[in-house]
Amino acid sequence: MGIQMIPGGVTAAAGFRAASCAAGIKYQGRTDMAMLCSSVPCAVAGTFTTNKVKAAPVLWDMEQVKAGSPVRAVVVNAGIANAATGPEGLRLCRETAEFTGKVLGVPAEAVLLGSTGVIGPQIPLDRITAGVQAMAGTLSGTLEAGTAASRAIMTTDTINKEAAVAFELPAADGKGTVTVHLGGMSKGSGMIHPNMSTMLGYVTTDCAIDQALMQQALSDVVKDTFNMITVDGDTSTNDTLLLFASGQAGNEPITAADEGYGLFRDALFTVCRALAIKMAADGEGATRLIETRVKNCDTKENAQIFAKSVVGSSLVKAMVFGRDANCGRILCALGYAGPDFDPAKIEVYLVGDEDTVCFYKDGRILAFDEEKALAILSADRVRFDCDMKTGACEATAWGCDLTYDYVKINGDYRS
Amino acid sequence: MGIQMIPGGVTAAAGFRAASCAAGIKYQGRTDMAMLCSSVPCAVAGTFTTNKVKAAPVLWDMEQVKAGSPVRAVVVNAGIANAATGPEGLRLCRETAEFTGKVLGVPAEAVLLGSTGVIGPQIPLDRITAGVQAMAGTLSGTLEAGTAASRAIMTTDTINKEAAVAFELPAADGKGTVTVHLGGMSKGSGMIHPNMSTMLGYVTTDCAIDQALMQQALSDVVKDTFNMITVDGDTSTNDTLLLFASGQAGNEPITAADEGYGLFRDALFTVCRALAIKMAADGEGATRLIETRVKNCDTKENAQIFAKSVVGSSLVKAMVFGRDANCGRILCALGYAGPDFDPAKIEVYLVGDEDTVCFYKDGRILAFDEEKALAILSADRVRFDCDMKTGACEATAWGCDLTYDYVKINGDYRS
Repeated sequence: MGIQMIPGGVTAAAGFRAASCAAGIKYQGRTDMAMLCSSVPCAVAGTFTTNKVKAAPVLWDMEQVKAGSPVRAVVVNAGIANAATGPEGLRLCRETAEFTGKVLGVPAEAVLLGSTGVIGPQIPLDRITAGVQAMAGTLSGTLEAGTAASRAIMTTDTINKEAAVAFELPAADGKGTVTVHLGGMSKGSGMIHPNMSTMLGYVTTDCAIDQALMQQALSDVVKDTFNMITVDGDTSTNDTLLLFASGQAGNEPITAADEGYGLFRDALFTVCRALAIKMAADGEGATRLIETRVKNCDTKENAQIFAKSVVGSSLVKAMVFGRDANCGRILCALGYAGPDFDPAKIEVYLVGDEDTVCFYKDGRILAFDEEKALAILSADRVRFDCDMKTGACEATAWGCDLTYDYVKINGDYRS
Repeated sequence: MGIQMIPGGVTAAAGFRAASCAAGIKYQGRTDMAMLCSSVPCAVAGTFTTNKVKAAPVLWDMEQVKAGSPVRAVVVNAGIANAATGPEGLRLCRETAEFTGKVLGVPAEAVLLGSTGVIGPQIPLDRITAGVQAMAGTLSGTLEAGTAASRAIMTTDTINKEAAVAFELPAADGKGTVTVHLGGMSKGSGMIHPNMSTMLGYVTTDCAIDQALMQQALSDVVKDTFNMITVDGDTSTNDTLLLFASGQAGNEPITAADEGYGLFRDALFTVCRALAIKMAADGEGATRLIETRVKNCDTKENAQIFAKSVVGSSLVKAMVFGRDANCGRILCALGYAGPDFDPAKIEVYLVGDEDTVCFYKDGRILAFDEEKALAILSADRVRFDCDMKTGACEATAWGCDLTYDYVKINGDYRS
């Protein structure tokens, strides 16, 4: 029992359909727009970029989520971020929402928007509306439609990102339990240092749950998942994570922070963590995932700061790319993270599937087995464990190595 | 009059001699140790890394500078950082200082130490002492000896870094003025995000000045010079900047924060800024210098935060490498820097020697002349000006582009 991973993404939950199309916004020969639509009015929760420069669709979505009215659809384009576009960018958002609302027969305010891509240019409204029109006719609740949508929102991503789970909750009619579904998709590869990152993430569920509790669960979960990954330390202007609940599962609605809420929160955590790790592993140019676990720390916040400092260090990232166990760089990244600790007391480990190498203890770098270290550094997932010896809190952060391809991708992104 | 740039570095000021040698600590076929020696006891001021993990020579120097006794020499090695080396590393520092003290006929506490290189290994004491012995016999006050010392402390640096100035101060005997000299050398290329960076910097002057005023000037100047450069955001365990004053110029000693102090401070600023810019331009793998000037900001601290955020952004750095005017990334880096501003009010410029391109105003990226932008982005020094419209404070930060070679250098540093 508990929480089961299941196939699919945004269409795993009852009541949600997806569509995608090639609108020719910037990319050629691939899909670049996606639409997600609920058959009934949905409760929605969201978290957004903390960047002071917020893209127009972020401002639009924040307004609608704050208003708290039910929503019905979200329209996403890849290629242009609609950021740093001034009042004109906001006007194009409104026109897109109004057009979509007309096509779907819902209010403009029930349509949320997402954009990702280059900062600066205006979105081409005619292509956007043509795309909306085309997608409205091909909405489908199949898993394949969800997968196609997750592909359409990619930019420099090399793989699409989906995850879904199922769990049981008491039925609304009091007769046993019903199966509840929660699934999502996300994109993001560069400008990833969520707080939020351009990450876009969309999670749907058929769970019946109070909007305030949805928001609480989302705000809670994002801190340990999407906000714990970094690719390049750049927090994007467009980061958006939305959670839609259709209430179609037939469960007894969750109205308090009870056991059912705990299960819902865990399900949301499972999906968001899976999506976050996929994003870190698919960081621009990345060849391997870096995971840093900080244990026995005085506070959780400090544990998070240490973990993110290590996965965010350019020197640690380059060392993982080169499979060079230059482990002093991990010490260095802990040391400049900010929170206090005693360098003479902490221990740092390189953790593989089979072997673990302790390379720092009693205030110094130890002699270690270079072959074992090389084997661990050559795996797809490279893990560092840091034992801070200051308390009982822990945190995990994910990142990726720094490669020639990151430079190549970002030295020539617009062309 | 005022402050004149002059040739040379650490031997420009009267009373200082330098030496260097190939001690074979890690590098082959090049010099890797330097010694700086004063003919008289010197006042010394210092600033050190804020990293919680401090290298053994940093701990040694901090202790001596705090004690306030006069110093006579500094011994520096490249190749091994003597960081994360535990009590053994500290013991090796003491032995190096004691040996040097004996050779020079001064107390061990009058000998300061500096190390830069790989973190973890212990320094080979026998080679270090052999180097000290050899250098003690070749100390020279020529400019060439200073230049040779600046070469010996390089690690991944591609050029040595020296700067010196001369200025006039009232003579101690009341008869007119005397010429005072101040010059320095520094090294640093990676793990550069001084606060302090592995940067090592040594500045000498023949000015007669109170130790407390020296320290005040140094602490003040470092904030606007070395602490405003970044190569990779990694603050090293070894950062050290030392200022030595021999008092040999014959000026009336500076004992208050008067006009003479202001001139001394400006001279120190001139040398430190020149060295800092050389370090940023010589960042690991760098092909060009990035300068960001933030103007009309509410506070100087916020201006510094904005300027450092822009020069530290991996995406901005990669864009400069690719000469791709993807200027939204500068907006993005301002937006996640932290301090508040109104994105609808600020203006951002790309500034070349001949042309200036405004690419952001009134809340949006403007259409700009791509050819002009390409020309500016192709210069050795690329400058961005950000007008925050929140006050009257300003700051400048320096960094470098992110290149394939940075990844190459840091993916395989130990070998």
